[in-house]
Amino acid sequence: MRVAVVGAGVSGLTATKCCLDEGLEPTCFEQSQDVGGLWRYTEHIEAGRPSLYPSVISNTSKEMSAFSDFPYPEDFPVFLPNAQFLNYLQRYADHFSLRKHIKFGTTVVSIRKHPDFATTGQWDVVTEVEGKQTFHVFDAVMVCSGNFSEPYLPLHCFPGIERFQGQYFHSRQYKHPDIFQGKRVLVVGMGNSGVDIAVEASRVAAKVTVSTSRGAWVFSRVFDHGYPWDMVFNTRLMSLIRNSLPRPLSWWLINYRVNQWFNHKNYGLEPEQRYFLVPVLNDDLPSYILTGRITIKPGVKEFKDNSVVFHNCPEEEPIDIVVFCTGYNVSFPFLEEAIIKVENKHASLYKYVFPTHLQRPTLAILGSQVLPGVKLCRTLSSFLGLCRLPPHPKGFLWLVYMDELASFIGAKPSVLGLLCRDPQLALTIFFGPCTPYQYRLEGPGRWEGARQAILTQWDRTLKPTRTRVSTSSYSLCPSLLTVVGVLLLLAALFFGFQ
Amino acid sequence: MRVAVVGAGVSGLTATKCCLDEGLEPTCFEQSQDVGGLWRYTEHIEAGRPSLYPSVISNTSKEMSAFSDFPYPEDFPVFLPNAQFLNYLQRYADHFSLRKHIKFGTTVVSIRKHPDFATTGQWDVVTEVEGKQTFHVFDAVMVCSGNFSEPYLPLHCFPGIERFQGQYFHSRQYKHPDIFQGKRVLVVGMGNSGVDIAVEASRVAAKVTVSTSRGAWVFSRVFDHGYPWDMVFNTRLMSLIRNSLPRPLSWWLINYRVNQWFNHKNYGLEPEQRYFLVPVLNDDLPSYILTGRITIKPGVKEFKDNSVVFHNCPEEEPIDIVVFCTGYNVSFPFLEEAIIKVENKHASLYKYVFPTHLQRPTLAILGSQVLPGVKLCRTLSSFLGLCRLPPHPKGFLWLVYMDELASFIGAKPSVLGLLCRDPQLALTIFFGPCTPYQYRLEGPGRWEGARQAILTQWDRTLKPTRTRVSTSSYSLCPSLLTVVGVLLLLAALFFGFQ
Repeated sequence: MRVAVVGAGVSGLTATKCCLDEGLEPTCFEQSQDVGGLWRYTEHIEAGRPSLYPSVISNTSKEMSAFSDFPYPEDFPVFLPNAQFLNYLQRYADHFSLRKHIKFGTTVVSIRKHPDFATTGQWDVVTEVEGKQTFHVFDAVMVCSGNFSEPYLPLHCFPGIERFQGQYFHSRQYKHPDIFQGKRVLVVGMGNSGVDIAVEASRVAAKVTVSTSRGAWVFSRVFDHGYPWDMVFNTRLMSLIRNSLPRPLSWWLINYRVNQWFNHKNYGLEPEQRYFLVPVLNDDLPSYILTGRITIKPGVKEFKDNSVVFHNCPEEEPIDIVVFCTGYNVSFPFLEEAIIKVENKHASLYKYVFPTHLQRPTLAILGSQVLPGVKLCRTLSSFLGLCRLPPHPKGFLWLVYMDELASFIGAKPSVLGLLCRDPQLALTIFFGPCTPYQYRLEGPGRWEGARQAILTQWDRTLKPTRTRVSTSSYSLCPSLLTVVGVLLLLAALFFGFQ
Repeated sequence: MRVAVVGAGVSGLTATKCCLDEGLEPTCFEQSQDVGGLWRYTEHIEAGRPSLYPSVISNTSKEMSAFSDFPYPEDFPVFLPNAQFLNYLQRYADHFSLRKHIKFGTTVVSIRKHPDFATTGQWDVVTEVEGKQTFHVFDAVMVCSGNFSEPYLPLHCFPGIERFQGQYFHSRQYKHPDIFQGKRVLVVGMGNSGVDIAVEASRVAAKVTVSTSRGAWVFSRVFDHGYPWDMVFNTRLMSLIRNSLPRPLSWWLINYRVNQWFNHKNYGLEPEQRYFLVPVLNDDLPSYILTGRITIKPGVKEFKDNSVVFHNCPEEEPIDIVVFCTGYNVSFPFLEEAIIKVENKHASLYKYVFPTHLQRPTLAILGSQVLPGVKLCRTLSSFLGLCRLPPHPKGFLWLVYMDELASFIGAKPSVLGLLCRDPQLALTIFFGPCTPYQYRLEGPGRWEGARQAILTQWDRTLKPTRTRVSTSSYSLCPSLLTVVGVLLLLAALFFGFQ
């Protein structure tokens, strides 16, 4: 069974690897000259490819973003600057000998149903190398082309932008902060790039203002007691609490939790929709606001010649340069709209993967919603033979979603089952972070190293920062339960006394 | 009574102002051409003067560092970049018409006891303007020359430094991070400047290592729920708890508290002397460690030609450039050692102000230990007539110390006394931050605006960051008690559920 994989980024690499594991025959088409996709930084911005700024650092920790059967080297930092992230992807590609399955410098031009699609589920794929097109037929297609290539810049939403005399550009164009030297900068939108760019700009600019109509919950990578945010938040225990408590109570607790670092209301950041939790990751923003280096403002009402007016604000704000951090369009230029329809930045996909209404589920879109690849591809490659799809889910909860996919192929870890056989592992799985290795314990593609990888996940997390040996001698890595227990006790005591 | 004030920085300005309030006749000698002292940034480093780097931001919040009768403007940021801090000092000088009492461009060359010092307490002061010396006699002297002019660089403590081929310099020489471009940087020492410089360097350097033998507790300006660290920590309630709980328990709680942001042990920062709490203020360090941009190492064992070896570490670390952030000498070049003896960076001073063993207490050293000037000067100017000094204190606890000084002149606020007369004020004084205005409620120099300043301290704190109006409508500034109550309740609930 021949599978076309579009793109050799995080999802494309693991898709290729999983196809090999399942005995399928993948051909990965990558338009650039190396693996890495989004994470392959280039100083020059290339059309149709994502563009990073050099200071980008991963938002997910090394343990949570690892491929499920390929943990990061112990001495890699906990959150990876983009160059090191790319290095990890290259190691993965080399370790599993994926490069020979990748056609570099090859652009996928079109993917159309083969004439007898209804019976075979096959696809006609046209690729292009240096202007020369080639025609292929594949039994299945995995689209791993990502969502960060086509900037979304809705200028019609900003009245007066046509008379604005200053410079403006989309965040995709951003590389270095020098351009902001001494300027009055306006950043429109506060997703991850918006905040990153505002912080960098504020070190050289005369003034930096961030305009956001929706607001945001901002998290720091450095979470409770310095543990990575995603390793604290994404545990089975937390997931259970979130899903079993009455909705108002669980939102209330989450609300308390997200305001623990700083009160979003006091910092002008409180989201309009307070209960829809899509955090922005940034370690610096609150201190930059508190020290006056960044000012938060409401949405833009209109631009004038050399200034901007915000909603609910009488004064005009003089501005020299505007960065629109308004995100990206979801776009699949090589697919017909009949196959996948994108509306309001969202594609209608079953389980965020399969276009609905196809007679045969032999086309999958990967990486549109989930943390990097993780184990989706494995499920997927097992799916490719199915013809009927299970019912559609209601909401999106990462851990629940992962478990659901895993359960389809029997790779969902059973905490209760493990409790007798391997209590240490069971407790680590339940109380600890839901690292990808959990999905390699059982089922097809089971990996011998998974148990060990789970039990040593905190070692790899603590190792790179414990670089100064202290004289006092605690045990290096106390079990999570002890930590939690002691913390609870201390917290109770402390709050009692306070 | 004629008083010489040496230096027109934070302490010198308030010393001059308080002398005027007390009907004394101050003459302030300032070697540079403007007020501001430490806070007057110059691109060029001047001998005998402090030297800032341009990115310095105040470590104490505007409410805690305000002059006791001159609150900051409402729209100033909560922590002030140095230029704005200087602006505040200039406003203070102008508001109280202090400039006419300041002799600019005038260096104090020597201060010696007048021949009949034992009876009059007078001082012979020699000043110099453009090489020309002038002789004065003063009834009292207030030394406000600061401790950041003479760098401490103990090269003999770093074996092999003489053979090190790279560049090295003292943090005092540091202005801009450009010099670190692409270099492997070693920062020795982690006081406030050490960490600031390491963070800045890491944005351009190839690699940044911080060497610290002692470690440090690192605090963020952004404390619990985003409130300024010093407004949360320095309350009468907290002071009471610290002083009344059994020592081990209170240290244990403080220990828990300081590790709440991040576990210092996991980040290689745990202080050797865990119970001696002199925090380093930095908002960025933990995230820079977690993302691998800064590595913490133990003390330097020795330098080699192009590298450094650390204690307890077998590997050599290649280094191109070293910044010694080893602090400053306490130095009073214009005073004889018989008057003030400096040992191990500490001068022996009664209440950190008066040289011991003087027949007459007419010379005071200001600003060697306390938060900027605050109200020390007022006490001091009342002191100048006394001839006998009260007994010496045991330790240094900021709030206790302030209260003690205030009680000498009857300016210590009485919480119990206020409870009946003005319960709102009493509760704010007890539960809220111990802002300087508290010492202007009673006693000599009582200020009518003090009560209002205290009751609006949170307004001025929240105003500059609440720049985006949210649609939901809470009360702007809930009373601290409500906040504490709700937080306790939520925390208890949350931890219970967790």
